[in-house]
Order: sequence, then C-alpha cells, then structure tokens
Amino acid sequence: MEVEFSKENFLLPEIKYEYLDHTADVQLHAWGSTLQEAFEQCGMAMFGYMTELDYVTVETCYEIEAKGDDIKGLLFHFLDELLFLFSAEPYLVGKKLEITKFDMDNLEIVCRCYGEPFELGKHPQGTEVKAITYSAMEVVQDVERSNFEVFVIIDI
Amino acid sequence: MEVEFSKENFLLPEIKYEYLDHTADVQLHAWGSTLQEAFEQCGMAMFGYMTELDYVTVETCYEIEAKGDDIKGLLFHFLDELLFLFSAEPYLVGKKLEITKFDMDNLEIVCRCYGEPFELGKHPQGTEVKAITYSAMEVVQDVERSNFEVFVIIDI
Repeated sequence: MEVEFSKENFLLPEIKYEYLDHTADVQLHAWGSTLQEAFEQCGMAMFGYMTELDYVTVETCYEIEAKGDDIKGLLFHFLDELLFLFSAEPYLVGKKLEITKFDMDNLEIVCRCYGEPFELGKHPQGTEVKAITYSAMEVVQDVERSNFEVFVIIDI
Repeated sequence: MEVEFSKENFLLPEIKYEYLDHTADVQLHAWGSTLQEAFEQCGMAMFGYMTELDYVTVETCYEIEAKGDDIKGLLFHFLDELLFLFSAEPYLVGKKLEITKFDMDNLEIVCRCYGEPFELGKHPQGTEVKAITYSAMEVVQDVERSNFEVFVIIDI
C-alpha cells in the first residue's frame, strides 16, 4: 500500500549491516559408455569450468593416482588429485584425461592428464574451484545399456 | 609425475559433460541497538544487495505488514514481503525502512519502505535475490548491552 510522507527533513539511517562470504556451487554431470569414460569426462568438465579448454593446447602430460574406499570416494579423490594438479605446481589444465588403470576391485585409478600449465593472458580465467564435495554425489551404472553417469557438486 | 607422450595422432575426446544449475547464497548480517533496528537494517541490506542504494532516491513510500509464529518466522516474512515489493508492482527499492509497529506479543510488524521503483539505466543491477531462507538464521538479543543482531542467508 502506497502511503503519504513528507520529504522535508528526511534523514537516512546509519549503515549497520554487512555481507558475509557468499558460497556457490555448480553440479558437474558427465557420462560415457563405460564408468571409466564418465570419470574422465567429469575431470575434463572440471577443468572446463576453470578456463575455456579451446585455449588450452596439449604440451605436457602428468600422471596422477587416486584411491578410494568405495566408488564415490574414488571419484572424489580422483577429482581432488586433478584439482591439486591445477592448484599447485605444475598448475596443469587438463584438456584430455586418459585413465590407464581403472581397478574396480582395489578401487584404484591411474590417469594421464594431457594439457599445459595455466597461464594468465593465454587462458581465460574461469571460475575458481574451491573444493570437490560429496554432496548429492551420484554414480549411475547401467551396464545393460552401456550408460554410465556421474554427478558431482563442486564448490566455487 | 610428468610423463612422456607422443604428440602425433593426438586425438581429443568427444564432449560428454554439462554444467547443471549453479546455486549461490550470501549471508546478511545486520545489527542495531534495538531488535526493531536490526530488522530494518536487515531489510536495507537486502535492497543494498539488489542495487547500489546510492543511486536510489526517496520518491515514494509503501507500507507492508508481516506476521510470524516466532521471531525467526517474523523476520522471514518481513523480508519476504520486502522482496515481493521489489519483485512485482511497484518494483520498489527501499532505501530506508521504518518499522512503525513492532508488536512482539502478537508477532506483527508494520513497516514503511521509502524509495523508488527500480529502473534499469538509473539503478545498477545488483544480484537477483531469489529467496529468503531459514538456513542458519540467527536472532541475537542482548538486552543488557543493547545489542541486537540478525543473520539471514538469502538465495541469489
């Protein structure tokens, strides 16, 4: 309801508020005809969020290893290792991921990450990925239809 | 670990991933020497997130009412009414809020909102506030020290 008021002697109050840290996340959805491919795609999705992969060339290759207590844990640690590759030396942006060992009995992964070190000016700065989360994580395995999907929420 | 690889016949994989809706929130923290003032400040904090209040002039005044079952509910509905004032006719941005009735027995608020309708070009577009939430909401009432604070997380 609109009400009358006088604009004379209108005083504005002092500011007594602040904005506290804002949190955000995005959900990665990746798929493949094997679970291994879905994992690879998920890792590439993460790198694709950090920068535009079209600007990244394949200059070098690093190998990472990940282990887990179950499939979700394995996915988590796999992505976490990739994130670490980007966050510290060699600051690698992976353009292509190739899992060379995908041991579902022992829950172990070895993966080759092809790409190059992140370089401001050459690579557009995407969104900083702060952490991988277990929140609402899903691993869908439809062996009959060769359909494998993973859903991972990452903090940005 | 860096590994050797051949750049010859290097193939990039097909893209099999997508990014699903990203969610974000920000926490408003407002305070005052009375609870009423903390509520007013919290409402102004919300408007201040939608645009820069320095660009808003006081041209009109609307009155809103809010009720709750408890203090948190009252704060929620108070902010929700203010959000509604912005989201539909008159699209009002409140620069100053003045609670004229603050009935803690019946948990009722009447508030005057001084400001003007949002206008693109005149007002910088801040962040869209999608919803008020009850998440981690806090109302601190320290009567002895005349210190009142509210914390509200809003979805953006």
